[in-house]
Amino acid sequence: MPAVKFQQAAGIQPEIAVQAMPEDERVWVPQADNVWFRPLLFNTVSGGWSNLLRVRKSGVLSRHRHPMIVTGYVIKGSWRYLEHDWVATEGSFVYEPPGEIHTLVVDEGVPEMITFFTISGAMIYLDEAGQMNGYEDVFTKIEMCRRHYHAVGLGDYVDQFIR
Amino acid sequence: MPAVKFQQAAGIQPEIAVQAMPEDERVWVPQADNVWFRPLLFNTVSGGWSNLLRVRKSGVLSRHRHPMIVTGYVIKGSWRYLEHDWVATEGSFVYEPPGEIHTLVVDEGVPEMITFFTISGAMIYLDEAGQMNGYEDVFTKIEMCRRHYHAVGLGDYVDQFIR
Repeated sequence: MPAVKFQQAAGIQPEIAVQAMPEDERVWVPQADNVWFRPLLFNTVSGGWSNLLRVRKSGVLSRHRHPMIVTGYVIKGSWRYLEHDWVATEGSFVYEPPGEIHTLVVDEGVPEMITFFTISGAMIYLDEAGQMNGYEDVFTKIEMCRRHYHAVGLGDYVDQFIR
Repeated sequence: MPAVKFQQAAGIQPEIAVQAMPEDERVWVPQADNVWFRPLLFNTVSGGWSNLLRVRKSGVLSRHRHPMIVTGYVIKGSWRYLEHDWVATEGSFVYEPPGEIHTLVVDEGVPEMITFFTISGAMIYLDEAGQMNGYEDVFTKIEMCRRHYHAVGLGDYVDQFIR
């Protein structure tokens, strides 16, 4: 095939192509104590987002339910869910079905875990009794990024990931 | 939070948790000359699939259009599209918008590229004139896997990835 460049469709969304792991530490958005995320895509049309999740502490991190599909690919370290017997290690692929409730745990001896997650819909956070005590969706994630990037001098850095 | 295991919803789909890179070479399904894929998820409800794509030759591999969203994370090597100026290298994240036509190229000097792709909808293959000359969807991909795994003695290995 010759090196012809095809005309793209009118109104097509711009693509994204970035190194997932940022060189600038400020790109990591603090999520909780020793937990950060790095945005890669915010889908405001279907509702969902892709990001890296980075954790540098052991213990139980969060219990949540997913109303829609989640996939993950582990880039570094390992983690597991209390509700399952497997451990997600470097190079693992994970599919999390809609409706699943799980409790993310990073075990002692894992100094850092980084996972590429694509989350559709929302995260619904649950307390010990299984009652909702918070949620996140594409818009709350965008807002977290926007505040953080303005605070650290990166301005409207988040905009490049919003579609 | 205590280590309570929550009861999952009735009728919930089973999760998937596997090492993406298989130890058994037979798991790689031949796609074309020196091109293989490794299935990770076949979504027959929304239409789409996640897989690793492995290429061990340089040159123009395929020209295609996506009717729906695609995301990718490069695990090894590098590649590019003739239609864009960037090169996807190890650790790159890529978002490909619906409607995009692109021509995948692996450059000389790249012995192997492996990328984790999640493809929604279909791949519509195009010839030099931009006319459709083939397509793939979740069902053609499942069928390719089924034939290959039966031929190499892995039987119904593909079934674990179908939802």
